[in-house]
Amino acid sequence: MTDAERAAFWRGKRVLVTGGAGFLGSALCHGLARLGARVTAIDAMMEEGGANIANLEGASVLLVRGDIRDVELHSLCQDVDVLFNMAAQTSHMGGQRDPVADIAINAVAQVRLIQVLREAAPRATVVHASTRQFYGRPLRLPVDELHPVQPPDANGVSKFAGEQYWLLEQRVHGRPVVALRLTNCYGPRLRIRDAKQTFLGIWLRRVLEGETFEVWGGEQLRDLTYVDDVVQAFLLAAEVAPRPEAAGRVFNLGGSAPASLIELAERLIAANGGEGQYVVKSFPADRAPIDIGSYHADDRAFRAATGWTPRVGLDEGLARSLEWYRARLADYT
Amino acid sequence: MTDAERAAFWRGKRVLVTGGAGFLGSALCHGLARLGARVTAIDAMMEEGGANIANLEGASVLLVRGDIRDVELHSLCQDVDVLFNMAAQTSHMGGQRDPVADIAINAVAQVRLIQVLREAAPRATVVHASTRQFYGRPLRLPVDELHPVQPPDANGVSKFAGEQYWLLEQRVHGRPVVALRLTNCYGPRLRIRDAKQTFLGIWLRRVLEGETFEVWGGEQLRDLTYVDDVVQAFLLAAEVAPRPEAAGRVFNLGGSAPASLIELAERLIAANGGEGQYVVKSFPADRAPIDIGSYHADDRAFRAATGWTPRVGLDEGLARSLEWYRARLADYT
Repeated sequence: MTDAERAAFWRGKRVLVTGGAGFLGSALCHGLARLGARVTAIDAMMEEGGANIANLEGASVLLVRGDIRDVELHSLCQDVDVLFNMAAQTSHMGGQRDPVADIAINAVAQVRLIQVLREAAPRATVVHASTRQFYGRPLRLPVDELHPVQPPDANGVSKFAGEQYWLLEQRVHGRPVVALRLTNCYGPRLRIRDAKQTFLGIWLRRVLEGETFEVWGGEQLRDLTYVDDVVQAFLLAAEVAPRPEAAGRVFNLGGSAPASLIELAERLIAANGGEGQYVVKSFPADRAPIDIGSYHADDRAFRAATGWTPRVGLDEGLARSLEWYRARLADYT
Repeated sequence: MTDAERAAFWRGKRVLVTGGAGFLGSALCHGLARLGARVTAIDAMMEEGGANIANLEGASVLLVRGDIRDVELHSLCQDVDVLFNMAAQTSHMGGQRDPVADIAINAVAQVRLIQVLREAAPRATVVHASTRQFYGRPLRLPVDELHPVQPPDANGVSKFAGEQYWLLEQRVHGRPVVALRLTNCYGPRLRIRDAKQTFLGIWLRRVLEGETFEVWGGEQLRDLTYVDDVVQAFLLAAEVAPRPEAAGRVFNLGGSAPASLIELAERLIAANGGEGQYVVKSFPADRAPIDIGSYHADDRAFRAATGWTPRVGLDEGLARSLEWYRARLADYT
């Protein structure tokens, strides 16, 4: 699709983004609004999550505050063309502490949303934000989509259930659905206040504030996806979802070449002009049972189906992130 | 374990069996009571499920009527030594019709039970009745435990979630937990009133009543486990669950050599002295999307871990089943 074709595709489309005030949801809202889509964001603005009202600053988006567990969904879903389903409880520790709330958001509320959408927008395309999380500690690297599912925590159980309900909607009712299993994503609008949204959030804050950050473990490999590349992936996924080769599929999404946490820490400091320091700590005992070790994605299936390829390298992405937050620290700390 | 060792192991043990009035739950209750265990069965006695008060006739078992979604669980779980967790919504069509109730029973109520058990019986062993169902349409045969999980219906989604919560309890809290992924089980106490509990239930009824039964499709392969062999498997699973080589594991359970539905129909009629007839019909359209084709289990891991081997061959199991129901048709139709 050329840029012009893409703009034509999205212009005037009714799009609903759940979790639209969060890190990835809001970035997607900005991108969609720029393409001329009519975007509604719904977000529960949960304190422990990624939502931040500042995330939607400057975007032509209608933000509805509401929790998908109980908000009136019918009017939100009416005649929607595309649903980007980004709302989730994503906290691993939160899921362990309160698995009932965790499954209520990530699975039971998904069932309700699916049922409402079936009535209100039976032909809408859905792109569901899923996660590498439930692969657990990888049995082999890189991890492809046929890797066994072995959730390391309650959050992984509920996220897998939610994803599978959406895929069933394609298989049983023919709805165009694609699920993207994300790895660690980073960039502007990531929650950096604390360690609740990937390890990189709090690292960015500490570096920007001139404080020492902690690296837990250090040898674990991770791949990272820059937010702009995530947005491109979601747009592409929606564009191809009705095609037979994409409908009802899950795709891993990777990004940068795998690097150890130590290497990532070094490159973050380099991206900050060499300023910054970290200490290496052992993995906290209360998190050890849910630690997954090394991960990186085999995302060749998604690349083949969509032509997607990450455009923003790690060093550039880190530099851009630092620059973005430097001007907005007060809104994010 | 010799028979004497097994009796010594179980004598006086406090055992809770959820779904204890159902097909497999009640068979387990009978077996446990014979071994001298102190058995409490809890069952919601749901009309669409496998529960039947006649199933517990003659067993020294306390039956509590209650739904694990809301019953007071604490007193039931207090100081239990072993929990056999057989309660489930198992209807595939029911799960599609009401996925919210389905996940409430199979996953959310499991979380509650796990939490109560953590307080009331922190060291109890748990054997969780799981299912081959969520492997979906097999990518290869026979199906081992690393086969990808791809639930073909909402019931498969919720059952996988429930299983995984129990396994986490082993990984995070060290509880001895084993999950058995069952294939089609049959024998005395199976629901034969209608087609709600495997295809074989209604076949048995039709044959016993001298009526024609329907074979849907016909070429699909199935393996079957006779109920006595299932009971042995659950007892063995509880006995080995605390060992490092078993704790926290899932095991497939197979049984008879795979046979096509047509062959199974022929053998059922042969077991009935040649009396009986069937018609082959195409798979009903409303069930086609959740049809899984052929399945048979690779259960070598469980055999290796426990020494289990099925004792009752298919022809004998079918003959025993027919004989058992012939004397009790009124209670089961």
